Amino acid sequence: MTTTTTPPVAEAAACCAPIARQPLAEPDAAELAALLKAVADPVRLRLLSMIGSHAGGEVCVCDLTAAFDLTAPTISHHLKVLRTAGLIDGERRGTWVYYRIVPEQVARLGALFTPLAGPSTART
Amino acid sequence: MTTTTTPPVAEAAACCAPIARQPLAEPDAAELAALLKAVADPVRLRLLSMIGSHAGGEVCVCDLTAAFDLTAPTISHHLKVLRTAGLIDGERRGTWVYYRIVPEQVARLGALFTPLAGPSTART
Repeated sequence: MTTTTTPPVAEAAACCAPIARQPLAEPDAAELAALLKAVADPVRLRLLSMIGSHAGGEVCVCDLTAAFDLTAPTISHHLKVLRTAGLIDGERRGTWVYYRIVPEQVARLGALFTPLAGPSTART
Repeated sequence: MTTTTTPPVAEAAACCAPIARQPLAEPDAAELAALLKAVADPVRLRLLSMIGSHAGGEVCVCDLTAAFDLTAPTISHHLKVLRTAGLIDGERRGTWVYYRIVPEQVARLGALFTPLAGPSTART
């Protein structure tokens, strides 16, 4: 008789993420889908990552526009979608608007799909 | 001459989520946006949560269809989108297909927006 020391069933991971803890109610699903739609776009994902990773935590819209091969109105549209979703915030100073990430709202997205911190994350 | 040992700028929170750690490269942004599009829909979010939270970890497509006021082909379409994105997997047994969540792919979504566990999460 061999003693298997492997942990039971490693179903873990998804089981603890809120998305997989209980069926989402219709209104919650609608609200979360809207938030996800705001980030489900390559340009908006890149904008979000540029804003979030910028030294000092904020970026001038002028620098964002310069980084893309897109017109200023197109970038403005994408920024507006992110801002309406509450994922970024902007402040006008002089000629330009400066954007920064809203960490709580970004973390909300993550929390939906992330198993609770604990033993499951320590698993290898 | 003073020796400053404080870490540079502790913008924390969002700074540690991969989305805010460094600018996303274009191909990565495109791939992640496709994955996010798969979940950026209220019906698909509800399907995902129903599959993930179901006792035993899997659900018969017959039960999923019964839970919605939608036609079977519509539910099938949404399930196909989730399956194509690698978020669920299905197995035919007899008349019905049984779906279960793919934890690794769900966790990938979460990781993108989640600050690394550590001091930053303890901030208030």
